[in-house]
Amino acid sequence: MQADELTVKQLGPCAVDSPLMRAAGGWNFDFIGDERRVLMDITTQPRPDCEGLSFEQAGPRRKIFFDPKNVRAAILTAGGLCPGLNDVIRGIVMELHYWYGVEVVYGIRYGYQGLTRDTQWPPRPLTMDEVEDIQAHGGTILGSSRGRRDSGEMIETMQQLGINMLFTIGGDGTSRAAHELACEIEKRSLPIAVVSIPKTIDNDIQFVYRSFGFATAVEVSKGVLTCAHVEAKGAPHGVSIVKLMGRDSGAIAAHATLASGDVNYCLVPELPFPLEGEDGLLAHLRARLPQRNHAVICVAEGAGQHLIGDSGRRDASGNIKYNDIGLFLRDAIAADFKQHSEEVNIKYFDPGYTIRSTAAVSADSIFCSDLADHAVHAAMAGKTDVVIGYWHGVFTNVPMAAVVGRKRRIDPRGKLWRAVLSATGQPGHWGLKA
Amino acid sequence: MQADELTVKQLGPCAVDSPLMRAAGGWNFDFIGDERRVLMDITTQPRPDCEGLSFEQAGPRRKIFFDPKNVRAAILTAGGLCPGLNDVIRGIVMELHYWYGVEVVYGIRYGYQGLTRDTQWPPRPLTMDEVEDIQAHGGTILGSSRGRRDSGEMIETMQQLGINMLFTIGGDGTSRAAHELACEIEKRSLPIAVVSIPKTIDNDIQFVYRSFGFATAVEVSKGVLTCAHVEAKGAPHGVSIVKLMGRDSGAIAAHATLASGDVNYCLVPELPFPLEGEDGLLAHLRARLPQRNHAVICVAEGAGQHLIGDSGRRDASGNIKYNDIGLFLRDAIAADFKQHSEEVNIKYFDPGYTIRSTAAVSADSIFCSDLADHAVHAAMAGKTDVVIGYWHGVFTNVPMAAVVGRKRRIDPRGKLWRAVLSATGQPGHWGLKA
Amino acid sequence: MQADELTVKQLGPCAVDSPLMRAAGGWNFDFIGDERRVLMDITTQPRPDCEGLSFEQAGPRRKIFFDPKNVRAAILTAGGLCPGLNDVIRGIVMELHYWYGVEVVYGIRYGYQGLTRDTQWPPRPLTMDEVEDIQAHGGTILGSSRGRRDSGEMIETMQQLGINMLFTIGGDGTSRAAHELACEIEKRSLPIAVVSIPKTIDNDIQFVYRSFGFATAVEVSKGVLTCAHVEAKGAPHGVSIVKLMGRDSGAIAAHATLASGDVNYCLVPELPFPLEGEDGLLAHLRARLPQRNHAVICVAEGAGQHLIGDSGRRDASGNIKYNDIGLFLRDAIAADFKQHSEEVNIKYFDPGYTIRSTAAVSADSIFCSDLADHAVHAAMAGKTDVVIGYWHGVFTNVPMAAVVGRKRRIDPRGKLWRAVLSATGQPGHWGLKA
Amino acid sequence: MQADELTVKQLGPCAVDSPLMRAAGGWNFDFIGDERRVLMDITTQPRPDCEGLSFEQAGPRRKIFFDPKNVRAAILTAGGLCPGLNDVIRGIVMELHYWYGVEVVYGIRYGYQGLTRDTQWPPRPLTMDEVEDIQAHGGTILGSSRGRRDSGEMIETMQQLGINMLFTIGGDGTSRAAHELACEIEKRSLPIAVVSIPKTIDNDIQFVYRSFGFATAVEVSKGVLTCAHVEAKGAPHGVSIVKLMGRDSGAIAAHATLASGDVNYCLVPELPFPLEGEDGLLAHLRARLPQRNHAVICVAEGAGQHLIGDSGRRDASGNIKYNDIGLFLRDAIAADFKQHSEEVNIKYFDPGYTIRSTAAVSADSIFCSDLADHAVHAAMAGKTDVVIGYWHGVFTNVPMAAVVGRKRRIDPRGKLWRAVLSATGQPGHWGLKA
Repeated sequence: MQADELTVKQLGPCAVDSPLMRAAGGWNFDFIGDERRVLMDITTQPRPDCEGLSFEQAGPRRKIFFDPKNVRAAILTAGGLCPGLNDVIRGIVMELHYWYGVEVVYGIRYGYQGLTRDTQWPPRPLTMDEVEDIQAHGGTILGSSRGRRDSGEMIETMQQLGINMLFTIGGDGTSRAAHELACEIEKRSLPIAVVSIPKTIDNDIQFVYRSFGFATAVEVSKGVLTCAHVEAKGAPHGVSIVKLMGRDSGAIAAHATLASGDVNYCLVPELPFPLEGEDGLLAHLRARLPQRNHAVICVAEGAGQHLIGDSGRRDASGNIKYNDIGLFLRDAIAADFKQHSEEVNIKYFDPGYTIRSTAAVSADSIFCSDLADHAVHAAMAGKTDVVIGYWHGVFTNVPMAAVVGRKRRIDPRGKLWRAVLSATGQPGHWGLKA
Repeated sequence: MQADELTVKQLGPCAVDSPLMRAAGGWNFDFIGDERRVLMDITTQPRPDCEGLSFEQAGPRRKIFFDPKNVRAAILTAGGLCPGLNDVIRGIVMELHYWYGVEVVYGIRYGYQGLTRDTQWPPRPLTMDEVEDIQAHGGTILGSSRGRRDSGEMIETMQQLGINMLFTIGGDGTSRAAHELACEIEKRSLPIAVVSIPKTIDNDIQFVYRSFGFATAVEVSKGVLTCAHVEAKGAPHGVSIVKLMGRDSGAIAAHATLASGDVNYCLVPELPFPLEGEDGLLAHLRARLPQRNHAVICVAEGAGQHLIGDSGRRDASGNIKYNDIGLFLRDAIAADFKQHSEEVNIKYFDPGYTIRSTAAVSADSIFCSDLADHAVHAAMAGKTDVVIGYWHGVFTNVPMAAVVGRKRRIDPRGKLWRAVLSATGQPGHWGLKA
Repeated sequence: MQADELTVKQLGPCAVDSPLMRAAGGWNFDFIGDERRVLMDITTQPRPDCEGLSFEQAGPRRKIFFDPKNVRAAILTAGGLCPGLNDVIRGIVMELHYWYGVEVVYGIRYGYQGLTRDTQWPPRPLTMDEVEDIQAHGGTILGSSRGRRDSGEMIETMQQLGINMLFTIGGDGTSRAAHELACEIEKRSLPIAVVSIPKTIDNDIQFVYRSFGFATAVEVSKGVLTCAHVEAKGAPHGVSIVKLMGRDSGAIAAHATLASGDVNYCLVPELPFPLEGEDGLLAHLRARLPQRNHAVICVAEGAGQHLIGDSGRRDASGNIKYNDIGLFLRDAIAADFKQHSEEVNIKYFDPGYTIRSTAAVSADSIFCSDLADHAVHAAMAGKTDVVIGYWHGVFTNVPMAAVVGRKRRIDPRGKLWRAVLSATGQPGHWGLKA
Repeated sequence: MQADELTVKQLGPCAVDSPLMRAAGGWNFDFIGDERRVLMDITTQPRPDCEGLSFEQAGPRRKIFFDPKNVRAAILTAGGLCPGLNDVIRGIVMELHYWYGVEVVYGIRYGYQGLTRDTQWPPRPLTMDEVEDIQAHGGTILGSSRGRRDSGEMIETMQQLGINMLFTIGGDGTSRAAHELACEIEKRSLPIAVVSIPKTIDNDIQFVYRSFGFATAVEVSKGVLTCAHVEAKGAPHGVSIVKLMGRDSGAIAAHATLASGDVNYCLVPELPFPLEGEDGLLAHLRARLPQRNHAVICVAEGAGQHLIGDSGRRDASGNIKYNDIGLFLRDAIAADFKQHSEEVNIKYFDPGYTIRSTAAVSADSIFCSDLADHAVHAAMAGKTDVVIGYWHGVFTNVPMAAVVGRKRRIDPRGKLWRAVLSATGQPGHWGLKA
């Protein structure tokens, strides 16, 4: 990566005094200058591939691009549900209103669908009253959807509504579409800022150290693992299989495993485990059950693709639809024990939708309001085609192009996986290259 | 039913003074005499089929059958998990110890399997220390299993261990087996009491007004329905289907529907709903979604058998294995909307194991300790072949034969179903005979 | 008590067909006739003082007094908060709307204050939309207040608004005021029904077998007791004191003690415990701590009045303001240990407001909607000066005069207290007459 | 601060191969070298006072000081309770066992009291079995206490037990005592490592970016604030005051305010608010209540010391005992409204012990196991007089002397306080120097 790939685009020069300069009774805040940057490698001996690389620090600018009284903002949520969506929506409306005095904020319904020409779902004005209590509820008051729409068509809708500031909250697909939209806007030289708040319950976005909803997902998952443990111990040779989210990264599975303390096998996409053979999961289970009577398996949905292959189908966001590794494991274990004439009682848990739709825990809730805060400051300063990142505890403005399509994964040599191995006692060499 | 069918069997005369007479510093309690009976119909104008019928009130007797110092008790849990099992186990151990001074209590492992001749799982002595905190955990510390075992063989095991008091905690199958066991014991004229605490998360046992674990099941189910509502509202034309327990009775589905307030269709075994046709569920959904954008369906696992039939298989307890009505509905709705070229986004929730394995809420926890208390008093008084019932707020001793095989069901003309109709707004005539 | 004291007043003859007769597509429900009554003593050998006594069963009548299209209903909540208030409000609005088609329902603000002549808080119309989600929140959307108001003045306000049906939700003071109001209405021969839903978090209303909010209060209290246990064990000679609600009855303290399993001393108003002396609480604590290192005390706010006396003050509802037994115990224990030169670390918990203001658990929530349902049926049938009772699992219509001023208390010889003694191991003779 | 103040002490050279080099089936992990350091200021333009300053990165070393088979470790917890203590204890035992094969771990009872000569509480061996499930419970299985003990005496006790590795988990006072102990050990040239895991529920330790238990404290506090909001809205002119922990820093109050969204005034030690006068809290309340009917005040225990002064007393840890700002505010507001003849209904919440004694949420739980992991690696590598820090997401080894006595505080110009102002709408100039 080159340093200039981390340079944030700007709609134009910042000539307006920020209202924060005189906010709250003569008080002013720590403004951040564009030149303030956070190192990619924060140690005294940076890795060669990080040398010279840094992120623009996010936060309020003393001079801003938009005159607040001319701003007409819009917010949309796209992709799957994730705890905290309403917190982000609420935060954006509140920050725009409270610090900048922006009064016109549209909620776009059902993701990009709400920006199409003949949408059935017209935008919904978002007032302070309307967003006041929404953070107590899971999901998104705007609705969400998958799939892209034509950038030109969406720009026309925005122009009809007079929108000059768009906040998109969504995952990789959403950011990709937002990036295309921003590029098309740039091509047309329109003064419309596009700022993305990255959403991934899997916590696997590159340059986003932590993503909102993840803490909540782990908390709920831990509760399910406790139930799975109870079920496994409740029957002779009881085996519980819990499938958790994680298409490309087992971050939720690994963290839930640590939080729970009850998992015996944590299976993640990053480390393909052997199923058959002397060293395979089945043989391990057959050895374990006569001694310990039970086993709990926590499997990320993207794990074991070497065993089952993908389904060849894609969802509307373009994500590959995987075959269900949880059901596959259930059947494989049942068949194996039957073949060896041993009793086994398998319980399968698939709590995905319950995890996604829960209201955010406090840590996520606060993090969401921070993200919203920084997104608003970025937009007001005329930054565009930008994602709000979080790097070593500092919020950053990162060009969308630098984030899109890059996934963060569990490092099998790092402390997270080391902790998983000691928590589960599972074989440490599984999935490693010989 | 004849009055004598409600007469409880007795191992022999009660000649021992109850330790409760001098318990707790000279104090004694309200003893209950065997002649104290609770009316089956508690109104001034009893229904003809209840006339003359009453239940023996449970509780401590002044004179008891067993000399506490000779008692060797055993407890077993059988069938599926249910919130509160550990509470009942703990309660029995504590009451035996505290009020009667019984010191020997065995925990039989994995249901009736633990009473077979060559069981891999020998009984585990249950001390006060061991049961002290178990109520904080779901499941059963003893493990459970399905299926019957030979009564003679189990009696031999009990005799080897010197057990003269057996508490079984389980559902209809367990009670049936306990009844057989008690009959065989009677045939052999052995002084062994068999007392059953009825377990049915579905709350469908006849003469058991309320069963333990039900309040917890409804509480957890309500949480899942909230998530289902969030998911349904989160996508265009979102439909959430939540399958809840309830093979023969929709009690959990109905109560969770009332507690939630978010359900639009509550489908139960007692009222077969139409799927196709002008008045069918599919037509209703197709009319609803364009207007309300979302729908939540709560379906009991035993509902819709007229549509899918059973699988022809039975589990180890002898229960019919139903085809999955939830998956069936999911596919039927998807196909129907596809055929009508309308968008629909279906989310399916199957939280059964999570509901079963949760620790009991306080109300259930207290109810469990009450059940345990009355089971211990019944056993000490030499009652046998008996189930602890709960009738209009009073604990009762009911002969097993009167309970086994009888199910309680939702009355479509009663207040529960009336409340469901007003909560959902679903068609009130569904499932009624014309 | 005489049988006619349990006869319910009626505004006039019921000449209107209930809409439930043709509700829900030709279907009709189990109507209840006024002659249907529930026995006060439900056993085969009733106690002499219950002989001949019974309660009118509540529920929908085939013929009703009010023509639904002329009904203008009002709801008010008074006294302290209690989990479930919003559930009752919602239930009343929904049942009036759904089954009877009543469209005008006023929410009276801040209890009887909202019916005074020059109230600052005008009534708020309650629509279905407004009450849709209120059960998810604790407290009351109407606000509450203590204190009585002039009946005549309130009647005038009601007449100005055209209100002919008033639902009051409140405790003993509220019911007393409602009774006075109903009497004044009767005196003036006005066709206004007054129906009360009894509220007492302490669960101590006579003829009300179970009161709403109690299950929730116990659940929250149990959580606090768990914390108290942790704190007590966390310090050398740790003592935790938890004060729970219960002015006249220790029902919450006793049930929370059972649900928790962690309490060593449960102190209730019904059984005055000795503090000083060889057999007193202090001596017991001094003996216990060197052995067990910790102790948890759960004390009802009305306990120990023989030790501290009341404060001589009354709150706006006329309730005696007690001195704080929790603080008294804290200081007494600290002084005693200091005097004996022994270490003690006391932690004091006073969670009252947190308990009151929590949203209802499912069991309470459903119970509230049942209460609302029966209150609506009673009012529509022209019953007045009436409280909705709950007797052995059946909802009843009880004249207010029969309920007001009568408190239910823990029976020291009954099963609840017996269970508390075995759960705590505390001296069983405390508080008993020699 | 000088760079060498951040240099960590070492018991001696590291000559033993770490077992992690051959752990888990031939696999080895990312070892960290002592030269790897994290910058204090992680931006491209460091602040002058951070120039040249960095922290040693914590983690496993390839070569270690102790031969695992000779290690006898001990763990103690001191000071007030904090969510996560049991997680840390469990983590230390597990990491010592799993990665290094250390089998002897003592649990010291009740803090430093357990290391005194004639302690009543002998140490308790900690096995894997004993710590298996302790993380599910709040508090500390070891007990805790306040106050220092003589270093020499404690060293003798350790020597008698053969302890050569001490983990202390505690706050500023505990670290100070651990530092003295380590200095005394150094003076005596003993090969005993002393490693401290910093505990402060207030999250106010310098160089410790985030402290364990904080996320849990905020989560529980948020729940109490919700109740406070309900109570405030439930009465005419309702005011709820919630006192939260925070002697020197309002971090919990500020974060809970953000998480809740229901707070109108957040009062913290860092910003002394005016009480009286036109711009004071009382005048603000009097203006607010007639309009909004309610107010929620969240106050850190250390706030308002300019108004009430300290009590002049100190607890056993040497912390100043503050007068109770919550009670002071309650009385001041009541008096002020009385004087102005306006109604006010105040509810006071003091949930401190409930917050401290709750089991850790998942995020804290995982963080605790990370802290334990790094503490174990530090101790095995012979590092001593060291605290495990957390800096911009990286675990660090920090000399105790650099941490003790330094507190982190809310920056009134930073993003946290900015967010509090927009969440509450309270005056932004309160507490600022003119």
